[in-house]
Amino acid sequence: MTYKAAVVGAAGFAGIECARLLLAHPSFDLAVVTSDALAGTPLAKAYPAFAGATDLAFRANDEAQADLASCDVAFLAVPHTASLGLTPQLMAQGVTVIDLSADFRLRDPVVYEQWYGVPHTATDLLARAAFGLPEVAADQLACAAADHAAGNAVLVACAGCYPTATSLAAAPLIREGLLATAGAVVVDAVSGVTGAGKKATERTHFCFADENLEAYGVGTHRHTPEIEQILGLEGRLVFTPHLAPLNRGLLSTVTLPVVAGTAVPSAEELTALYESFYAGRPLVTVLPAGQLPRTDSVAGTCRAHVAAVPDARTRSIVAVGAIDNLGKGAAGQAVQCANIVFGLPEDAGLAAVAVPV
Amino acid sequence: MTYKAAVVGAAGFAGIECARLLLAHPSFDLAVVTSDALAGTPLAKAYPAFAGATDLAFRANDEAQADLASCDVAFLAVPHTASLGLTPQLMAQGVTVIDLSADFRLRDPVVYEQWYGVPHTATDLLARAAFGLPEVAADQLACAAADHAAGNAVLVACAGCYPTATSLAAAPLIREGLLATAGAVVVDAVSGVTGAGKKATERTHFCFADENLEAYGVGTHRHTPEIEQILGLEGRLVFTPHLAPLNRGLLSTVTLPVVAGTAVPSAEELTALYESFYAGRPLVTVLPAGQLPRTDSVAGTCRAHVAAVPDARTRSIVAVGAIDNLGKGAAGQAVQCANIVFGLPEDAGLAAVAVPV
Amino acid sequence: MTYKAAVVGAAGFAGIECARLLLAHPSFDLAVVTSDALAGTPLAKAYPAFAGATDLAFRANDEAQADLASCDVAFLAVPHTASLGLTPQLMAQGVTVIDLSADFRLRDPVVYEQWYGVPHTATDLLARAAFGLPEVAADQLACAAADHAAGNAVLVACAGCYPTATSLAAAPLIREGLLATAGAVVVDAVSGVTGAGKKATERTHFCFADENLEAYGVGTHRHTPEIEQILGLEGRLVFTPHLAPLNRGLLSTVTLPVVAGTAVPSAEELTALYESFYAGRPLVTVLPAGQLPRTDSVAGTCRAHVAAVPDARTRSIVAVGAIDNLGKGAAGQAVQCANIVFGLPEDAGLAAVAVPV
Amino acid sequence: MTYKAAVVGAAGFAGIECARLLLAHPSFDLAVVTSDALAGTPLAKAYPAFAGATDLAFRANDEAQADLASCDVAFLAVPHTASLGLTPQLMAQGVTVIDLSADFRLRDPVVYEQWYGVPHTATDLLARAAFGLPEVAADQLACAAADHAAGNAVLVACAGCYPTATSLAAAPLIREGLLATAGAVVVDAVSGVTGAGKKATERTHFCFADENLEAYGVGTHRHTPEIEQILGLEGRLVFTPHLAPLNRGLLSTVTLPVVAGTAVPSAEELTALYESFYAGRPLVTVLPAGQLPRTDSVAGTCRAHVAAVPDARTRSIVAVGAIDNLGKGAAGQAVQCANIVFGLPEDAGLAAVAVPV
Repeated sequence: MTYKAAVVGAAGFAGIECARLLLAHPSFDLAVVTSDALAGTPLAKAYPAFAGATDLAFRANDEAQADLASCDVAFLAVPHTASLGLTPQLMAQGVTVIDLSADFRLRDPVVYEQWYGVPHTATDLLARAAFGLPEVAADQLACAAADHAAGNAVLVACAGCYPTATSLAAAPLIREGLLATAGAVVVDAVSGVTGAGKKATERTHFCFADENLEAYGVGTHRHTPEIEQILGLEGRLVFTPHLAPLNRGLLSTVTLPVVAGTAVPSAEELTALYESFYAGRPLVTVLPAGQLPRTDSVAGTCRAHVAAVPDARTRSIVAVGAIDNLGKGAAGQAVQCANIVFGLPEDAGLAAVAVPV
Repeated sequence: MTYKAAVVGAAGFAGIECARLLLAHPSFDLAVVTSDALAGTPLAKAYPAFAGATDLAFRANDEAQADLASCDVAFLAVPHTASLGLTPQLMAQGVTVIDLSADFRLRDPVVYEQWYGVPHTATDLLARAAFGLPEVAADQLACAAADHAAGNAVLVACAGCYPTATSLAAAPLIREGLLATAGAVVVDAVSGVTGAGKKATERTHFCFADENLEAYGVGTHRHTPEIEQILGLEGRLVFTPHLAPLNRGLLSTVTLPVVAGTAVPSAEELTALYESFYAGRPLVTVLPAGQLPRTDSVAGTCRAHVAAVPDARTRSIVAVGAIDNLGKGAAGQAVQCANIVFGLPEDAGLAAVAVPV
Repeated sequence: MTYKAAVVGAAGFAGIECARLLLAHPSFDLAVVTSDALAGTPLAKAYPAFAGATDLAFRANDEAQADLASCDVAFLAVPHTASLGLTPQLMAQGVTVIDLSADFRLRDPVVYEQWYGVPHTATDLLARAAFGLPEVAADQLACAAADHAAGNAVLVACAGCYPTATSLAAAPLIREGLLATAGAVVVDAVSGVTGAGKKATERTHFCFADENLEAYGVGTHRHTPEIEQILGLEGRLVFTPHLAPLNRGLLSTVTLPVVAGTAVPSAEELTALYESFYAGRPLVTVLPAGQLPRTDSVAGTCRAHVAAVPDARTRSIVAVGAIDNLGKGAAGQAVQCANIVFGLPEDAGLAAVAVPV
Repeated sequence: MTYKAAVVGAAGFAGIECARLLLAHPSFDLAVVTSDALAGTPLAKAYPAFAGATDLAFRANDEAQADLASCDVAFLAVPHTASLGLTPQLMAQGVTVIDLSADFRLRDPVVYEQWYGVPHTATDLLARAAFGLPEVAADQLACAAADHAAGNAVLVACAGCYPTATSLAAAPLIREGLLATAGAVVVDAVSGVTGAGKKATERTHFCFADENLEAYGVGTHRHTPEIEQILGLEGRLVFTPHLAPLNRGLLSTVTLPVVAGTAVPSAEELTALYESFYAGRPLVTVLPAGQLPRTDSVAGTCRAHVAAVPDARTRSIVAVGAIDNLGKGAAGQAVQCANIVFGLPEDAGLAAVAVPV
C-alpha cells in the first residue's frame, strides 16, 4: 500500500531533499511538489541531480490546491509563519501535516512570540502537534500514530537541526539524572552552509564562506528555547552556533556539569548508558568508547552518531552529536516521523549509509 | 534469487564504495570483504559511515580463500598486477571476476608493458575479458552475459575513471563520423582527490590539495592508451589530468576537430545525436542544449551527465562528461557490469540520484 | 616620492584587492576609494580583513570627483562600458588611468561590439591604450612610461585573468615559432570562485560551488578574442573556462600542435626557452623541468608560475600557467603596470610570496 | 641594523611560515634554515611558493651547527622534547631562542610530565623562559627585552595556537574580575587542518578532512594546562578542540559564567573594556559591538580579532577569538616576540592584512 504525498515549498534545500527521499520511498508516492518561485520549472532543471530520474515539475501552490487536498500527507518546507495558515487548512481537508518549519515546535505561544517576533495565530493546534524527534519524544509520535490509525489527520512539528543534534547528544545524560541542578549547559554547534538556506547572500557566497569559521547569533538563535524545551533546561542553555566551510553536516558539542554526589561515569559507562537509551533505534548510533562522531559519516543520510566523554578533572561530560542538517536535521527526520505516523518501519526509505569517503 | 559476492581489496576507496553498493543491492549478498592491511577490523571502524549498519569485518585474503571460492562473483579492487594472478585462480574456481584494476583493459600486452612498465603475465585471458563500459562497449558485455548464462565464469575489465567520463562524452561524435581524420583530440580532465587514492601522501594531504589546482602526469598518464583504444584514437590523444579540491567528481572536457566537408552541427542537433546514442541507457543522461554537466549532480552515484557544444568559429566540438570517479568511474560501473553479466536490470541497486545540493 | 592614487569601484573583488595592495605600497598613497553601493561604509566593515588597519571608507563617485581629479593615477575596477565614459574624463584631468575592465583591451571596436554586445564609444582612445601584460607586451608599456615621463596622463588596459595565465603559458612557444601553422590551440582553464565576482547568485552560492566542477561559456567567453589578439591566433582558439571550488587561483592548460618539420623540443629545451623569454622578469617564474605550476603557490600574490611539457607522441606541447586571478590576473597586474608607467621597479609592493601552505 | 636569524626545524608548517616571515623582515636576515629530513633541498622545491623568490636550501642540523652558533636568534620549530636539549646549547653560545614548541610553556615541570608523558630535563631554564603571548603576558617579555638589551641571550616560550586565541578572547574579562568564582569555563575551539601538521596521515588526508567536522582530544588536549596557567583557571577549563575543512584559521569560543552580584555588562560595555585592555596593541583588534570574528579576516597574518557578547538570560559571556593558527598562533607570534626582545616595533614585518576575500 502506498500513500500520496506532497512537498509544499520544495524549492528550498530542506524541501528538495524531502522530495529526493520521497521519490525513492517504498510507501510514499510523491505526487505534488510546489514552489511559487519556480512554478513550471522541472525539478531536474533547478536541481540537475534529478536529470534523467524524474519529470516532476514545481507547481504554484494555488494551482495545486485540489491535488494537495487529495494527498494523504503534506510535508511543509516553508518559512516560519507560513505554516500557521497552511496547516489548519490542510488538516481540515484530512491531510496529515509534517511541518518542517518552526511554527508548532514551541508549546508556549508566548515563547514563540518572544523569539520569533510575531504572534502565534494557530494556538489551538499547539496541543495537537506531536514533536518530531522520535528518539527523544517517542510518546507524542506514538499518540499521533494512534490518532492517525483512527482515521484522523495529524500534525507533527519536526525538530530543528541544532535541537536534533544537541538533544540526541545530551538527552540520555539528562534523562538519567546526571546533570547538575545548577550551572550552564554550553552548546557550541557548527553547521555546514546548507543550513543557511538557498538564498544567495553575502553569508552564503562561496568566497565569504570558504576557508572561514565564524560564530553567529550568540545568545539570540531561535533554536535556543526549542532545545531548552526538549531537555528541560529553561534559562540554563548557552547556545552558540557556528558556520564552517562544508555543505552538509552539523556537529553539536554539549558540555554539561555533573550532578554533585555522583561519581563522574567512565567512558564505558557512558557508552553503555547511551546504548541502552537508544536501543532499538535504527537511525541513532552510539559510537564505541574512544571514537567520536564525524559529520562526513552521516552526510546525505538520516542517521545520527553520538558519543559522550567524561572529564572527571572538571566534573563535566562532553557529549557530541553529528547529523546531516538536511537529513536527520530536517527532511530525513520529517520522513522518519511520517513513517511512524503511517505505521511503517521508522527507517523505511531512510536506511542508506553515507558514502564511506 | 541472490548471488554471493566478494570484494577483494576492499580497504581502498574503490573497494569500500563497492562494498557500500553491494550491501544495499537487491540481488547480490556481500559475503566477503578482504584487506590484508585491515584484516580483523570491522568496516565500521575503518569507515564509520557503516557504524550501526553492518557488522562485517575485513578478512585477510589467505584466510578467506575458501569463502572467496564459493562466491558467484568477486570484485577486484586491487592495484594493477595483483589482478594478473588472482583472476585466473578465481575463474578456475568458477567465480566471475569484475576487475576494477587496469590489468585486463588494454587488448595489446605490448601496450600494457609500455605504459605500466611490467610484462603482462596472463595474456591468455586478454581475449576473454569484456571491456566494462556498458554504454560504449555493449557487445562485449552482451557476450559475457551470454557466456555467463551458459554457466561459465566470465571476466570484465572495468574502464578507468578518466576513460569513462571521456568516452561517454566523446563516443557519440566519433561513432557518428564527426571527428576530423587528422589533428589532436585534446582531453583536459579534472578529478577530485579520492581519485588519488587512500594512501596518505603529500599529494593527498589536505593542506596541499585544498585551495589548489594543478595538472599532473602530462603526456604520461596510463589512461591515455585506454582512451585511445576505446575511441580508436591511437596517437591522437593529448590527455592532461588535473587535481582540484573536492572529494568526488570528475569532469572531462574533450575538444575535437570536426571532419572537413561537414557543417558543424548545432547544439540541438548534437543533443539529438547524443540522446539517440544513449537511448535506453538509464545511467547516462544527456543534458538539454544550453545546460552543462556539473559533477555535484552525479556525486555519490553511478550516473553520468554529458553534453556537447559546437564551436563553429573554430570548427570544433567541445564535449563534456561528468561522473563520480568512484561511482560511474569505478565501483558503480563495476556493479553495473555485474548486473549485466548476471542478467539483472543494469541499474539494479544503482538508481539513487545525488543529493540535490 | 609618492603618488596619489584612487581605486574607482573598490567594493568588488578586484577593486578591494587593488586597495589592499596600494595601502601597503611604498610609492602610491591610496587617497580615494569609491563605491556608490557602499558609500559611507568603512572598508573594515565591508571587508573585516582591514579592521585595525585602515580607517578609509568608500565614497560615492560623484562626491569624490574633485579628489579623483587631483590623483596621479586612478585604478578603474568597474564593469565593462563604465570605463568608456570615465577614462576620457579622468585623462582630461591629467589622471593616468589603469583600467582593469575590458573596455580598452581589444584593438578593434568591431570585435568589441561582437563579443560585448555594445558599441565602443571611446574608439579614439583605443590606439592610445597600452596593453597591460608587461611580460608579453613590454613595448606598449615602455611607450606609455615614456609618455608619462613626458608629463602626459596615459591609459593602460590591463589584461584579463584568463588571457594573462594563458598568454604567459603560451607566448614563449608562439613567439619562438614552434606553433603549427594550422590546427586549433585548445585552452582549458579553471578558475576559483572569486573570478565569478562579488554578486551573490546561484553560481557563487557556496552550496552550488562547493564540491563541484563545471565548464561554462563554451565558445562564447569574452576572453576568447583577447587571447587570440595577444597571441596572434585569430580563429584558432578553442577556449573553455571552468569553475572549481576554491577562492583564488587560475590554472590555464594550453595544448598546442608543434610546427611541422621541427623536432618536438625536450622538457629541458622548453625550460631553457622559457627561462630565456622571462629573463629579468621578477614576477614570472619558470619551474624546473619536471615540476608543474600549482595555484596555491601563487595565491594572494602577483606572481605567475609557468611550465611547458612536450608530448612527442602527438607532436604537441602542453603549456601550463598558474596565477591568482585577482593578483597577477587583475589587481596585482594593474599595480605592476602602474609601477612601470611611473618608473618604479615593476614589482614594487608586489614582491610578497604566497603562504607556503 | 639587522640581526642574523635561523629557523631550526623549518620543514614543518610553523617552521616554513617562520622562514617566510623572516625572509621579508626588515631587521632579521634569515641566514640558516635547517631540516634533517629535507637537508639539501631548496625551500622552493619543497614549498614552490618560494620559487623565484629565494635560493635558500634546508641544511642538516649537524652540518649547520657553526652557523647556528653565529646567529643572533634562533626560532625553534621542533617537536616537544627536542627543544629541551637544543635550547641550553644555543643559549650557551649566546643565541637568543624563540621556542615555538611546548617545552618551556608550563611553569611546573610536574604538570609538563603529567600532560606530555615525559620528564622535563631542563628545569633550570623554566624560570628564565618568558611566556610568548605579548598582549597578555607583557611583563615577562619586557624583562626578556631588558635582559637582552643587557647583552644576554634570552629564551621565549611562545604560546600555543589554541591558548593564544582563547586567552586573547577571555583575558580581558578575567583580568577585570568578571568571571564567577566557580563553575566551568567552556572552550570549544575549531582549527583548520594546518594545525594537524605536515605529516601525511589519515587525519590530514584530504578525503577524510574535507566536508567533515569532528571534535578530538576531549579532556586530554595538551593545551588545556597551558590555557589554565595563562588565565588562572586551574581545574576549571573544559577544552574541546575541533577540526574543520580549511587550511588556516582557528576560532575559539569561550563561555564564561559572570561573577555573582555584578550586572552582566552590555555589548558596548564589553567592547569598551576590550578596547581599553588592548589599547596600543597593533596586532589585536577588538571588533565593534555586533560584529563577530571571522578567521578568513586574519588568515595568512599575525593579527587577532576578538569580540565578547553578553548573554544576560544565562548570566554568561561568550568571548570569541580568531587567529591564523600558523600566524598569530605560531610563527607570527614568534616573530612578534623576537621583535619585542630585540627592541623593534612589535609588528615589524607583521603588519600585512589578510586578503580581503
